[in-house]
Amino acid sequence: MRAIQKLERAPGLKLTDIPKPDCGLTDVVIQVKHAGVCGTDLHIADWDEWAQSRIKPPIVVGHEFAGEIVEIGQDVGDAFHIGQRVTAEGHIVSGHTRQSRTGQGHVCPTTQIIGVDRDGAFAEFIAMPASNVMRLGDISTVMGAIMDPMGNAFHTVLTAEIPGSTVLVLGCGPIGCFAVGVARAAGAARVFAADLNPRRLELAGDMGAHVCIDVTREDVVHRVMDETKSEGVDVVCEMSGHPVAIRQGLECARPGGRVQFLGIPQHEVPIRVANDVIFKGLTLYGVVGRKMFETWYQMRSFIESGLFDPSPVITHTFPMEQIDDALRTIRSGEAGKVILEIGGTA
Amino acid sequence: MRAIQKLERAPGLKLTDIPKPDCGLTDVVIQVKHAGVCGTDLHIADWDEWAQSRIKPPIVVGHEFAGEIVEIGQDVGDAFHIGQRVTAEGHIVSGHTRQSRTGQGHVCPTTQIIGVDRDGAFAEFIAMPASNVMRLGDISTVMGAIMDPMGNAFHTVLTAEIPGSTVLVLGCGPIGCFAVGVARAAGAARVFAADLNPRRLELAGDMGAHVCIDVTREDVVHRVMDETKSEGVDVVCEMSGHPVAIRQGLECARPGGRVQFLGIPQHEVPIRVANDVIFKGLTLYGVVGRKMFETWYQMRSFIESGLFDPSPVITHTFPMEQIDDALRTIRSGEAGKVILEIGGTA
Amino acid sequence: MRAIQKLERAPGLKLTDIPKPDCGLTDVVIQVKHAGVCGTDLHIADWDEWAQSRIKPPIVVGHEFAGEIVEIGQDVGDAFHIGQRVTAEGHIVSGHTRQSRTGQGHVCPTTQIIGVDRDGAFAEFIAMPASNVMRLGDISTVMGAIMDPMGNAFHTVLTAEIPGSTVLVLGCGPIGCFAVGVARAAGAARVFAADLNPRRLELAGDMGAHVCIDVTREDVVHRVMDETKSEGVDVVCEMSGHPVAIRQGLECARPGGRVQFLGIPQHEVPIRVANDVIFKGLTLYGVVGRKMFETWYQMRSFIESGLFDPSPVITHTFPMEQIDDALRTIRSGEAGKVILEIGGTA
Amino acid sequence: MRAIQKLERAPGLKLTDIPKPDCGLTDVVIQVKHAGVCGTDLHIADWDEWAQSRIKPPIVVGHEFAGEIVEIGQDVGDAFHIGQRVTAEGHIVSGHTRQSRTGQGHVCPTTQIIGVDRDGAFAEFIAMPASNVMRLGDISTVMGAIMDPMGNAFHTVLTAEIPGSTVLVLGCGPIGCFAVGVARAAGAARVFAADLNPRRLELAGDMGAHVCIDVTREDVVHRVMDETKSEGVDVVCEMSGHPVAIRQGLECARPGGRVQFLGIPQHEVPIRVANDVIFKGLTLYGVVGRKMFETWYQMRSFIESGLFDPSPVITHTFPMEQIDDALRTIRSGEAGKVILEIGGTA
Repeated sequence: MRAIQKLERAPGLKLTDIPKPDCGLTDVVIQVKHAGVCGTDLHIADWDEWAQSRIKPPIVVGHEFAGEIVEIGQDVGDAFHIGQRVTAEGHIVSGHTRQSRTGQGHVCPTTQIIGVDRDGAFAEFIAMPASNVMRLGDISTVMGAIMDPMGNAFHTVLTAEIPGSTVLVLGCGPIGCFAVGVARAAGAARVFAADLNPRRLELAGDMGAHVCIDVTREDVVHRVMDETKSEGVDVVCEMSGHPVAIRQGLECARPGGRVQFLGIPQHEVPIRVANDVIFKGLTLYGVVGRKMFETWYQMRSFIESGLFDPSPVITHTFPMEQIDDALRTIRSGEAGKVILEIGGTA
Repeated sequence: MRAIQKLERAPGLKLTDIPKPDCGLTDVVIQVKHAGVCGTDLHIADWDEWAQSRIKPPIVVGHEFAGEIVEIGQDVGDAFHIGQRVTAEGHIVSGHTRQSRTGQGHVCPTTQIIGVDRDGAFAEFIAMPASNVMRLGDISTVMGAIMDPMGNAFHTVLTAEIPGSTVLVLGCGPIGCFAVGVARAAGAARVFAADLNPRRLELAGDMGAHVCIDVTREDVVHRVMDETKSEGVDVVCEMSGHPVAIRQGLECARPGGRVQFLGIPQHEVPIRVANDVIFKGLTLYGVVGRKMFETWYQMRSFIESGLFDPSPVITHTFPMEQIDDALRTIRSGEAGKVILEIGGTA
Repeated sequence: MRAIQKLERAPGLKLTDIPKPDCGLTDVVIQVKHAGVCGTDLHIADWDEWAQSRIKPPIVVGHEFAGEIVEIGQDVGDAFHIGQRVTAEGHIVSGHTRQSRTGQGHVCPTTQIIGVDRDGAFAEFIAMPASNVMRLGDISTVMGAIMDPMGNAFHTVLTAEIPGSTVLVLGCGPIGCFAVGVARAAGAARVFAADLNPRRLELAGDMGAHVCIDVTREDVVHRVMDETKSEGVDVVCEMSGHPVAIRQGLECARPGGRVQFLGIPQHEVPIRVANDVIFKGLTLYGVVGRKMFETWYQMRSFIESGLFDPSPVITHTFPMEQIDDALRTIRSGEAGKVILEIGGTA
Repeated sequence: MRAIQKLERAPGLKLTDIPKPDCGLTDVVIQVKHAGVCGTDLHIADWDEWAQSRIKPPIVVGHEFAGEIVEIGQDVGDAFHIGQRVTAEGHIVSGHTRQSRTGQGHVCPTTQIIGVDRDGAFAEFIAMPASNVMRLGDISTVMGAIMDPMGNAFHTVLTAEIPGSTVLVLGCGPIGCFAVGVARAAGAARVFAADLNPRRLELAGDMGAHVCIDVTREDVVHRVMDETKSEGVDVVCEMSGHPVAIRQGLECARPGGRVQFLGIPQHEVPIRVANDVIFKGLTLYGVVGRKMFETWYQMRSFIESGLFDPSPVITHTFPMEQIDDALRTIRSGEAGKVILEIGGTA
């Protein structure tokens, strides 16, 4: 089968031809139709510091995907059928740890990530443990292919109290834009979105942000305080990972408010713990992955009911062969979410 | 001043002329502009069993209102000003009990209700403890006059987990209709509404119910199970107080779901505790009043942001003198919410 | 192997000799050392109405047990080893439903119970899905054999807010006595226990109840109100299933309090929903099984740390052959928890 | 009356003679019996950077106290009586903000602290708003005098899930020692305490810590990981404010765990947000003051029931005149909690 691999400890990805994966007794094999390209894939392609420390070539990359079941392991039971359209959680946990047995699989220390720690989804076929697979129902494989990053946004937003609340989203990459849409769908009274890229702010506006703040032109803290009568917002979603945004997020949260951290800073961040956390009585929450599998059921409900539509954020689609073009588009800052077509349209 | 009073231990209400109330040191006096007429007022007018046991005439009736501050007690401080448009929580608590000091004033055993236990709001002026008063900001006094019953709906709906959930509202009187609107605004994936009155179901539809079930024509449980692939709904709001609806609500809730009880049954209700509560792992919650004052701040946010608009439910307005017409309209079953004009339009 | 079976649709249990169970690919086979005898086993032996409607003979009965792993299925992985001392959750769920994938397996509609819906634990060997198995560590198999009913008590108590609270336990059978001990260990300020059986009240006292109320001699509601300055208790655990106790429990709960229902009433229960639930703003919760598997980890922590010791409740031990004596002892009302020795002491 | 004042913008405190305070309409005047000396009083005496920026002499210092009511304002009602033994919350909030009306008074931006922003409790009499006053019942005024700092510990510990959990307390000053005792009383399975002062560790042991870690002799992270089989602890209470302890606390928390910040760092703290917060899925909470007034009712329940006894932490008592000795004792690091006798024993 065709696959996109990291072959060597050096920059670049390669389109290769490798054997189709075997189907373990508790696995299903999925023919991949669409896959999402993520910042993580870019790090792996560019072979940056993080990639050098984590990735062991050769490996098939990619962790966001959807497709059709073509083979079912003999111990899987009758939960799935051949031809069924599905996506899957890309974090694979042991199933025997306390975390994975108590609804906290997303923080299980045994987690392996497809496309990072084992072969991933930029390939015509992928074998996945049946327990990681989610049926799509009427959801398309294009949308299914990005339920992984959408799930990050659902996890971030829905672990705060949203109905009637004011929400600030810092960083309007695809996950930030999804977060704007989730907050609107969940009944936020007012959603502020901030970024330095006008194209991303435009997408945030398309997803429903009431106020879009271009941080190259105005001060986020000043604007948010001004718009909230100096009260600050109930919920901050920090999706940028930038130290300045982290500080601004803490400043913009109202006393007693909540700050969700999803954006990953590269280095230590200096935090004014006394004034910005303790005296304000804030709650902070580190968001990793998706709740396994509560987030997935919430997300499916939002999409199937029409409450949430990620379409405006999907800006580009490329065939598998043009992975380099896909990566270049992301680097340009002009893209929302970029989709790879792997096995045709479904 | 003019007021509507219960004068004797017998059916009927009277328009009377009585002295304007004094302003206590910690009170404000409010000139009432609009008031809402409630089922409770009907019980008092009709002098039913409950009214006979609770009401001590003579008393000014009415507990839902909004108006303008005309006098401020000398110990109130600077939180309010003359001419300010306000409404007020009608449950008056001591402020010294554990409940009222820990955000649970709504279940404080010392509660006195205006228009029931002390003079109420169907009068040109009312004196209220400043601590019960809420500023209206840009909200009209017509809308302010019904924040008390809307608050019941907000309390009922927002103490459940709504975003992405399926919700069943049983009983589509004004509070049931408000509940439909709150559930939609808070991101419910699907809202079912049931009643036996077609006019009320129409109002529920106007407030956004996805499925309106006429219980004279079809079985609620059957329909809800059919629409939810036999899973049941996540949240049930029981707003009718009817024993049959209570049973149906328990049956329609999904395993692990939540049932909110607001409708007040007159007698004991036989409940299948084993099958309908324990084996399903349900959580039930008795809703009384509004959370003091969390519900009020949530409600103001929903209204000011435009997330929630109760207008379709307001079907009739009468001048104060026509209180008997107002009561007759409610009895007819043709009304949503009925408003009394007390002190002109504001 | 030897087993205790229900062979016919008639009263009685039989000691039989049947083949050892096979080990499925994802199962482990456990040599049972000790088993707990439960009221459920009594219903099956007595062939009462419930048993007639649910049980399909022939079946091995018993669902509370602990023992040693003797065989491991080839797909189980390395989470367990031969000779390991374990117990197991007796509710077997599909693993593919929303409930079982979101930490709510205890309310999964696909649940099958060992000893009720499929062969159980009163046998020398039992095959269990590895995902249901819990390692015992340093906990004895006697104690492990009753983690199922103790788990009911942990689930009941720990889903309420216990530290510093007042708690009323209605019904002091083994699970009620365990609940008393869990409430004490979790920092309840005051624990009241009520029953009509003096022996059971004595056990409740041994487990740490501050006040033991003999309901044949005094009124529970009167006593509890007297001891709490008419405030009522924060948390009620209803473990009897008796309609009178259910009413008393609702009356004894303070406004804003919580009532946990575990005891299973045989018939409908008339409930004063208006006065006893709505006007008091109560939260009610139906307790079924154990949270899978949060309750198990909590329980293991309480036992291993020495916070909780169920020993006083274990009053009788019988060899497997004397199952009839065991059942007779339970019927007498003189027993706490009754243990069967199956495969010797470990 | 006699009082201890900060008279000038320079180091030192003075015993002075000033007029007794007037009793406002909604105040009570309390004759102070005992007062607690706090690190804050030391900062004010020493006239450090923080004190210079915040304190406006002349001011009576001290904010922890208990005594007897000697005068009641005419609008207070009948909640209190002359001669009643009471303590009081020292954070005075407006009562009209959203925070103070929704059970979040502890984060109200209008807060004024007695002994810091207005006259305090190191005086024979103090006037307090009745709404801040808590009756002591059978609790002594010595114990009542330190309910303010004990309340910090109760707030810190009881906003985490304690029963059955493992808890690490970093910093064993008086509040840290109280936290150890609260965690034990609330059913923690294992409590670790760490400090660099052997005398403080001894007190932590007296309050019930299972493991006392002298950070001058061994590495906290290493020891905690070793004792928890590399899982980390469920709950961390950071009571030191030291940047190294903050980092160690984040490292010691298990994935999915919770870290409570009470100790106030003087400067920015560099935090590894990616590895120590996000990838671990931690929840962090900034603790300020006491929940008004939920914490006070919890605390009273723990003390009255005998669950919690702070006595081992009270190491010194001085008459009011020896305030300088009291401060010197605190500076020495040899003290737990230091009490001032103001108005004799009660």
